Amino acid sequence: MNDEQQGLQQVEQYMRAVIERAESSGILGERPTLPLYRVLAYHLGWADERLHPVRVEGGKRIRPLLCLLCCQAAGGDPAAAAPVGAAIELLHNFTLIHDDIQDRSRTRRHRPTVWALWGEAQAINAGDAMFALSQLALLEAADRLPSDSLTLLLKAFNETTLRIVEGQVLDLSFEERPSVSVTEYLAMIRGKTAALTTFAAWAGALVAGTDLDRLERFRRFGEALGLGFQIQDDYLGIWGRREETGKEPADDIRRRKKSLPIVLLLEAASRPDREFLDALWSRPEVSDQAVAQVLGLLERYGVRERVRAEVERLHREAQALLEEAASPGPARDALAALLDRLATRSV
Amino acid sequence: MNDEQQGLQQVEQYMRAVIERAESSGILGERPTLPLYRVLAYHLGWADERLHPVRVEGGKRIRPLLCLLCCQAAGGDPAAAAPVGAAIELLHNFTLIHDDIQDRSRTRRHRPTVWALWGEAQAINAGDAMFALSQLALLEAADRLPSDSLTLLLKAFNETTLRIVEGQVLDLSFEERPSVSVTEYLAMIRGKTAALTTFAAWAGALVAGTDLDRLERFRRFGEALGLGFQIQDDYLGIWGRREETGKEPADDIRRRKKSLPIVLLLEAASRPDREFLDALWSRPEVSDQAVAQVLGLLERYGVRERVRAEVERLHREAQALLEEAASPGPARDALAALLDRLATRSV
Repeated sequence: MNDEQQGLQQVEQYMRAVIERAESSGILGERPTLPLYRVLAYHLGWADERLHPVRVEGGKRIRPLLCLLCCQAAGGDPAAAAPVGAAIELLHNFTLIHDDIQDRSRTRRHRPTVWALWGEAQAINAGDAMFALSQLALLEAADRLPSDSLTLLLKAFNETTLRIVEGQVLDLSFEERPSVSVTEYLAMIRGKTAALTTFAAWAGALVAGTDLDRLERFRRFGEALGLGFQIQDDYLGIWGRREETGKEPADDIRRRKKSLPIVLLLEAASRPDREFLDALWSRPEVSDQAVAQVLGLLERYGVRERVRAEVERLHREAQALLEEAASPGPARDALAALLDRLATRSV
Repeated sequence: MNDEQQGLQQVEQYMRAVIERAESSGILGERPTLPLYRVLAYHLGWADERLHPVRVEGGKRIRPLLCLLCCQAAGGDPAAAAPVGAAIELLHNFTLIHDDIQDRSRTRRHRPTVWALWGEAQAINAGDAMFALSQLALLEAADRLPSDSLTLLLKAFNETTLRIVEGQVLDLSFEERPSVSVTEYLAMIRGKTAALTTFAAWAGALVAGTDLDRLERFRRFGEALGLGFQIQDDYLGIWGRREETGKEPADDIRRRKKSLPIVLLLEAASRPDREFLDALWSRPEVSDQAVAQVLGLLERYGVRERVRAEVERLHREAQALLEEAASPGPARDALAALLDRLATRSV
């Protein structure tokens, strides 16, 4: 097992430990119809639909990995960042459980979502519990940190949560609005996606005891990485191949999602093209023919190239920040590899 | 202005301060369709439906008052407990926003609920943001506390949240089940209602720097008070008068809520009475005649007296714990008065 795997295993242990502790001290015991903590285990890939223990894909744990590697690359012991990594992954999964309710998404990671199986009301509870558990995981870092660092970490963690929620508020509002500016779109992903990668990189370096200047570079590295990750995701939502993404090609067009390519297209389109698109968005379904027309417009207005260029720009920016922030060594190499993987990934 | 009012005003200031700070550092600015933080202000009674500033009843702030008075009664400066009180009130309101979605409640405190006005998806966001804000309020106590007390406080705060969520999980599960035992019912209110009053009393005493033995008495005082409060609420849900509660008499029978009187009745009822009740519960609506029959059964099986006796027993228990825990003085008197008010209240 390499260092990375070992670090993630520690993260997983912290996640399991806070959940098990909560379960054993809880009021539920054997009683309830809904075994709350088993449902969380299901969501995290530790249990099947009948809540029996299994081990399936429950997320790639990219965010805790980022945190651990940044801690190491800043000269710290990644083991000290493991509870922070656990808190980050639990926080991320709390937002996913609630997002799935809000977006009416019935599947995630090829499995039914929590609300699809146990209903909305109990999925709200599951997300709320996961959020409280993320705070408890973060408090596990208390023993290895000076108390003012702990307070700083907790404040930033909850401010990060607010940014994520704000991003989700904005994203939901986009669905109801005819047009969205690029500025608004970027504000949205800065909250919804990049806030947590920003926190992960920053928190890893903080646990390592880095000076303020370096801390700021790690923070910006995490942000550029998160923005690039999201825009690559938007790229794949339109130009990803079925073999790679497991979704229909142009899935985001069919779902009329206001992702970056669409926002750019709406901004660039001539009046008649814009009217065509607006009319399309107001219909109940998007036909295959209409999808082909939108794809044609995206090419014609050079949107595909602009999106690719933006992913590459953010990739280079993150690379430069990484070189400034991190000392040469295996952790920096691993972060560079993670960055490459996220910017060029096909799933 | 007396001490109590002054203390609650400080609590209110902390609540407003964390929300204003979050709003000004947030990504939303003037942009969104939904101004997240104004919606929270609406829920708390600081804004009207059009989100213009007003000052209406936004809750009685009983829990922060309990926290401040316990701090003072334990020999502490209640001002030190004000951020904790703010955190408690924000946490309480986060759970209310989510409960209203889960219970499909369209009004609270004579005003439309958040989800009724802005939809479920955004109400989930509002609750999530309120939860993160409650943590930030609690961190405002950091400056005035030794760091190990802060960690203890934060752990207990999040464990309390888990107990509240577990209580809600159990409560929702009751709706789908034919029978609920008294033990299960008590476990449910111990989580859903008493966990937060328990925390409030304990945290107030902790901030005062009380010894462990006294701390435990304050904790148990908060628990007895919370259980009594909830059972009195259940009493009023059936025998409260319209002039007092603003609700139909026997509202909980009409809503077929498995509150303590019903749980006791189901447990005590003879086979034919039990079959009558089960049949009633499976019908879409409860007629006035059926309500009268259930009221008759509650009298016949002595349930009304049993519920009253239980409220009085918890009242006496809380009084005794208060006398053991608190030194004589105005704070203890105020707590005794609060206790009397909660146990004999008619709304």
